[in-house]
Amino acid sequence: MARVALDLLGGDGAPEVVADAVAALDLDALDIDLVLVGPPTLAIELLAARDLDIAEQPRLTILSAASGVPMDGDPLAYVRAHPESSVMVAAGAVSAGQVDAWVSVGHSGASVAAAVLSCGRVDGMSRPALAVVLPSTLSPVVLVDVGASPEATANVLTQFAMAGWCYATALGITDPAVGLLNIGSETGKGDSLRVAAHILMQDRLPALGVRYAGSVEGHDVASGARAQVVVTDGFTGNVLLKGIEGAVGWAAQQMALAYGDPRPARAVVTGTATGDFAAGMLLGVNGITVIGHGAGRPNEIAACIRLAARAAKTDLIGLTQRTFSTLLERIK
Amino acid sequence: MARVALDLLGGDGAPEVVADAVAALDLDALDIDLVLVGPPTLAIELLAARDLDIAEQPRLTILSAASGVPMDGDPLAYVRAHPESSVMVAAGAVSAGQVDAWVSVGHSGASVAAAVLSCGRVDGMSRPALAVVLPSTLSPVVLVDVGASPEATANVLTQFAMAGWCYATALGITDPAVGLLNIGSETGKGDSLRVAAHILMQDRLPALGVRYAGSVEGHDVASGARAQVVVTDGFTGNVLLKGIEGAVGWAAQQMALAYGDPRPARAVVTGTATGDFAAGMLLGVNGITVIGHGAGRPNEIAACIRLAARAAKTDLIGLTQRTFSTLLERIK
Repeated sequence: MARVALDLLGGDGAPEVVADAVAALDLDALDIDLVLVGPPTLAIELLAARDLDIAEQPRLTILSAASGVPMDGDPLAYVRAHPESSVMVAAGAVSAGQVDAWVSVGHSGASVAAAVLSCGRVDGMSRPALAVVLPSTLSPVVLVDVGASPEATANVLTQFAMAGWCYATALGITDPAVGLLNIGSETGKGDSLRVAAHILMQDRLPALGVRYAGSVEGHDVASGARAQVVVTDGFTGNVLLKGIEGAVGWAAQQMALAYGDPRPARAVVTGTATGDFAAGMLLGVNGITVIGHGAGRPNEIAACIRLAARAAKTDLIGLTQRTFSTLLERIK
Repeated sequence: MARVALDLLGGDGAPEVVADAVAALDLDALDIDLVLVGPPTLAIELLAARDLDIAEQPRLTILSAASGVPMDGDPLAYVRAHPESSVMVAAGAVSAGQVDAWVSVGHSGASVAAAVLSCGRVDGMSRPALAVVLPSTLSPVVLVDVGASPEATANVLTQFAMAGWCYATALGITDPAVGLLNIGSETGKGDSLRVAAHILMQDRLPALGVRYAGSVEGHDVASGARAQVVVTDGFTGNVLLKGIEGAVGWAAQQMALAYGDPRPARAVVTGTATGDFAAGMLLGVNGITVIGHGAGRPNEIAACIRLAARAAKTDLIGLTQRTFSTLLERIK
């Protein structure tokens, strides 16, 4: 059983779309206790409108929170000043041990800030990183960071590599190889950040028992042959992730024309969007935090909840903490 | 009529694959005079093996060059020390006015170096940029830089924006809007480079008559709705381009399974790879330089040659020079 808190107020279509997602879940089959975080009266009304009586749902409870986070302004300043906001209440519930994980499809910067403030960073991880799992040809590929930390150093990228390796391992990928996203596979390729990161990873990762595959390129992300964890800064990773989403959508349109039938193409796109792909796992914080697409539809929100529960049943946080503590011992 | 020089010795499958491409071209129909650059004896032998007698082909000539460029080592140092290398001879033929454009599918760093050394940079353009045209949903999209200059400043990105606008205009895209590739469309989003570049572009581009669309995201590249020129540093652009290639290949595999027939999916991938997409135009040098995919197949090389001829028939270089000279006047 996993206990998952869900932000009722985050996302482009919130709170209606979040309520739609909740109404469609089979919590018994998923073995999830769900805690909806938002104004209780609103939550009860929204669920009642979907023929859900919370009093009759032992696996569904409400945790009171006053407000969402506005899309403009500084999210860190906002959540710091608003402990009653839904993201702070949800992340706080993880920190307090009331739930095992939390999910938001709202303002991702605010979710990152709430997770860092409430749960704290893993010792040795100087910045958080958002990881997604891409459904690549040969193996799922963990891409990290897709936007939590747009500026990185070689040391930060090496931390992302370790955190991504822990995540892939927790997801059941055996002995994942870590690749540095670059623009050529030869040593010395790339910008100065990549040159420095390559040297550091080459030195540090094997000493921690992590296989380092060296530099990989953009197309390797779609194959999974060379590395099952691909590491980059949050700027490049976010551009790449959205570029892949756009390219898959474009290809689906072309295929629909080429085959004269849009339905199978649409099914591929929907299947991808509602898999683990839809959900970002925030790495480097001491609490399982899943951040979904702001434009999330109900089945994408459901994918986020399933991933949160799956991670809660593994020892993601413990594995990450132990790996970083080994590193800190070594470099002391 | 356009006169195009083609590097016989560059590319993973060179010289055979280049000879295959030449043998398959209908130069009369394309209205191209082709100059093959490499060792004459080798060229004649390769063509003869493909039933082509150069003496009977008035539109096909040979320009003697001794060697290609090795894939390892410093390409700039190599081409500087080897004026007899095929890329230096081909770029030199453009500079001397013997041909209107040149094409190589070899070592792209060496081609960039040869173009800069032989043709010189456009005044006001401090670094060259490689641009590709993506076949997006609503309009072709020029993506610049895809790898010539992995490190950029705000000033360099603004130069890339202007050069990309000139290229899109020369290709016949009317009044193209320029977008800055970023990780959110709100002001203040992105890393420090993007924040600075946004401010500079907002100030400079409209003054030059260039529409500035502000920040765009990875998925906008596949749609073409918000901007028809998308500007980024060569690191991010290279990762994105290869990521899109990988994603389209992945999607084609999934579609082939979903539809139970791989042929239409393969046709979409091949059609994309052999369109203008296959060919990078080097911007910011005083000579039309087309750099293709190193793994180029004959029909991809043919696409590069067609693009070179098309650019030669427009006034790409003149338009670029005039645009930068207007800028230099303004900021004097």
